Amino acid sequence: MPGVVDIGTIAEQLGVPPDCLLPYGRQVAKIHLDALKRPSSGVGKLVLVSATTPTPAGEGKTTTSIGLAQALAKLGASVCLALREASLGPCLGRKGGATGGGRSSLVPAERINLHFTGDFHAVTSANNLLSAIIDNHIYHGNALAIDPRRVVWRRVMDMNDRSLRHIIVGLGGTGQGIPREGGFDITAASEVMAMLCLAEDSEDLRRRIDRTLVAYRWDGEPVYAGELGVTGAMLALLRDAIHPNLVQTGEGVPALVHGGPFANIAHGCSSLIATRMALHYADWGITEAGFGFDLGAEKFFDIKCRLSGLDPVAVVLVTTVRALKMHGGQPPGNPGAKNIAALRRGLVNLDKHIENVGKFNKRPVVALNHFAGDSEQEIALVVKRCEEQGVACAVCRHFEQGGKGAIELARAVMDAAASTPFAPLYPLDLPVEEKIRVICREIYGADDVAFTRQAERDLRQVTRLGLDHLPVCVAKAPTSLSDNPALKGRPRDFDITVRAVQVNSGAGFLVVLTGDVLRMPGLPKAPLAERIDLGADGRIEGL
Amino acid sequence: MPGVVDIGTIAEQLGVPPDCLLPYGRQVAKIHLDALKRPSSGVGKLVLVSATTPTPAGEGKTTTSIGLAQALAKLGASVCLALREASLGPCLGRKGGATGGGRSSLVPAERINLHFTGDFHAVTSANNLLSAIIDNHIYHGNALAIDPRRVVWRRVMDMNDRSLRHIIVGLGGTGQGIPREGGFDITAASEVMAMLCLAEDSEDLRRRIDRTLVAYRWDGEPVYAGELGVTGAMLALLRDAIHPNLVQTGEGVPALVHGGPFANIAHGCSSLIATRMALHYADWGITEAGFGFDLGAEKFFDIKCRLSGLDPVAVVLVTTVRALKMHGGQPPGNPGAKNIAALRRGLVNLDKHIENVGKFNKRPVVALNHFAGDSEQEIALVVKRCEEQGVACAVCRHFEQGGKGAIELARAVMDAAASTPFAPLYPLDLPVEEKIRVICREIYGADDVAFTRQAERDLRQVTRLGLDHLPVCVAKAPTSLSDNPALKGRPRDFDITVRAVQVNSGAGFLVVLTGDVLRMPGLPKAPLAERIDLGADGRIEGL
Repeated sequence: MPGVVDIGTIAEQLGVPPDCLLPYGRQVAKIHLDALKRPSSGVGKLVLVSATTPTPAGEGKTTTSIGLAQALAKLGASVCLALREASLGPCLGRKGGATGGGRSSLVPAERINLHFTGDFHAVTSANNLLSAIIDNHIYHGNALAIDPRRVVWRRVMDMNDRSLRHIIVGLGGTGQGIPREGGFDITAASEVMAMLCLAEDSEDLRRRIDRTLVAYRWDGEPVYAGELGVTGAMLALLRDAIHPNLVQTGEGVPALVHGGPFANIAHGCSSLIATRMALHYADWGITEAGFGFDLGAEKFFDIKCRLSGLDPVAVVLVTTVRALKMHGGQPPGNPGAKNIAALRRGLVNLDKHIENVGKFNKRPVVALNHFAGDSEQEIALVVKRCEEQGVACAVCRHFEQGGKGAIELARAVMDAAASTPFAPLYPLDLPVEEKIRVICREIYGADDVAFTRQAERDLRQVTRLGLDHLPVCVAKAPTSLSDNPALKGRPRDFDITVRAVQVNSGAGFLVVLTGDVLRMPGLPKAPLAERIDLGADGRIEGL
Repeated sequence: MPGVVDIGTIAEQLGVPPDCLLPYGRQVAKIHLDALKRPSSGVGKLVLVSATTPTPAGEGKTTTSIGLAQALAKLGASVCLALREASLGPCLGRKGGATGGGRSSLVPAERINLHFTGDFHAVTSANNLLSAIIDNHIYHGNALAIDPRRVVWRRVMDMNDRSLRHIIVGLGGTGQGIPREGGFDITAASEVMAMLCLAEDSEDLRRRIDRTLVAYRWDGEPVYAGELGVTGAMLALLRDAIHPNLVQTGEGVPALVHGGPFANIAHGCSSLIATRMALHYADWGITEAGFGFDLGAEKFFDIKCRLSGLDPVAVVLVTTVRALKMHGGQPPGNPGAKNIAALRRGLVNLDKHIENVGKFNKRPVVALNHFAGDSEQEIALVVKRCEEQGVACAVCRHFEQGGKGAIELARAVMDAAASTPFAPLYPLDLPVEEKIRVICREIYGADDVAFTRQAERDLRQVTRLGLDHLPVCVAKAPTSLSDNPALKGRPRDFDITVRAVQVNSGAGFLVVLTGDVLRMPGLPKAPLAERIDLGADGRIEGL
């Protein structure tokens, strides 16, 4: 691509000291986290990109983040992206890579999507070392008296493999371990990933790993990872993974791509270290939070910003005519077909997300991500609704046009930038049930929350462990504001059912499970892997 | 270390074109395999380093290879090492890293031992993609009519985790897969690793993956990986892994560290591509084959050399006073204690390995790897035995002294270098039972071979599949010439029992299982991981 230069040049333009740069080939480098301590000229205004309730294909948050960054650069601003890393699961399964699209893409997409600098593999190794050590501890006499039925620490693999969700390990007789039920999650769902993405540095990560709940003893008392004695080895395995990865967009804008926790069972944001690095070296840092505003951005504010003191000066809500029509009942066969009536009905989804942004004391800029088939009439309808709501709206064509197509958005973001401090949705000293209720009512629009018996037991256990001061991380269907994927638009008159509450004491939140939440996706009948090939020129096709 | 320079300088000294160099930080680079097609001045004399029957700690093959290379460089020769990559399993488990020791070590040891350039992780991903696709195929209608009881392709993980040896996957009901027995091997035991290390290039690797046996159908017919449709995606995952990794020794000698198949259930040599690269760019290429000569070097000749046309000009047999004393009945409590009687008895192990080298039409140079506690009298005894056998022997102190300590060995190797072509031990058109008999009788010294019923069934299946022309790869206890680890020295009057024969049609050999061969090691009660830590300076301690 024409705008692409050597990664060393990108780093130099950012002002990163050369001795902090760890190159991985010509187009990728890690920036040592010590670079955060070096002098810099970055003003560090943070922009959060979120979205209305997406279709399963997503509405282009990453593409819009990249387009916005490129547009800001075109306007002469110093800017750096902070985005999540791709997981092999979706790349080989159903959804594809995570490097934007069209003229708003990251380079080198192939490397970012496959293995990259090995961060996900390092997380997998650290997670699975702890698993092996737990089973080995039980095998060699079980001095900690771990109840093999209550090992809560699961293995992970960066692959969509439904057959590994529920397994029995340790079969084969006395030389092969102790049989017990277990299972694998996808690596993005590992608590190690969440910890890596919330840690300030290696020592913070050490404290987090040490305090991670991994099992219960026969007497019901908790066992924390620190008792297993391999925190140091896990840190060693994660030594390089903690440094953010620097790449660039197709127009030569720097992008830190680092960490990739799930946005349902984890907090869904790229690493705190990468966000800090972007703000340290650039005037504008652009980051995104997974899925819709209700899932990703709520956690971004209530978990990541509350923990770190980060506070965005602007919030972008990405939406599409296609998604809003889906929310208004567009038949699934032809999601792009012009349908004014469906769009009109679906605008309530946008309304609710605009309202939700306000609950954090922010006002959004709406980015209408333009698709080729959108009609002028449909676009005008969305723009008009934003006017009625009193929020800025920019029609974006960054997919076809690159940064040029997002200039209007960039100007709107610069105009909207304000330093009104964010307000968290709930105070941490509320009872856990109440924290959950506040999120479900205020953000999802639920009437009330029902707790299953399991969830009630879990909540008592949380209190017993003294962890009820933690923020909550709700795992919920991403394709509805409710916990029922079938409810589109702005669902009303519904309750949320909480099935279980899990302790992520290392990451520092309580995972609240609603509906059916998969921690290990499956492959479709015709997975994307079947289309991928290595070309004779060494390029990867079909990714 | 004083002799260490930038990896770009190492590559330049070797004559590798700069556009073929893919840097991974300042001390590691991959060399694109296209560099094999570029002009070079290397004369390409290959030296194979093997060993007598080792103690569990190993006798220092890697250290001796490095010492020899450093000594050759000191004598003004152009030299390049071709060695295996480290596996996380031993690093975190029992044996430790794989980067030599003392003043004969690879740099940067920490990176080589932990993750390195991600080759092992890429092998893991490619292997496990195929596993996920097989189970997904069965789940989505099973058009190939795969018998879930006869899936022979296992998952892998680069970890010592005994609990994963025998598992049941696919539990949890209709949405979670089809229950079946399965298991994990360590990544070094993956056939993908063996294929990567025997492939000439990506297209050769494609053919190998396509022809890999993965399962049987309900009607008993074989299913090959090519039928699953993800060979291209596996190649994409392995795109970078196929390029050899360049590092250096502490004295600045180039080393290609690439691939790491097990030396029992696989052929135990670093990649063919790396060996070719070393010979292409240097006058002397030094490589090693895993475990003792009986296991590693037999496969090196009968599998790797036969396939590729490689032929070493010299064979080094590493031995130690400690190992030979063990073979003579040294009590295990103090393996280093002076014990002339035990040493005298144990020399028969050396005798047999010298004899074995001759069976391939080669003469060895014995490298007596000196340990601090060895007495002069013991050393003299070994030297005298070599004289009696008519082979050169050099006492090596490269661990303490670096290349300087292996000058005598280097001179002996240069003197011994001869171009007498190697003779394979058996012709490929012998019946498989006979190939196995030849190895067991000629190399291990067995009287005869017994086949279990399972092995007989397996052999009939091999014939039915039309694969009886393949060479055999015997999996056997590494710490004895026999299949019984308790038999030390030069065992006589024993039979080998073949338990099973497995088809590795992608790698291109038949794995012959004798005794108890672990494809997934376990962790000891106090694993090395407990000693590893990340220091405040970013260095890894205890590795």
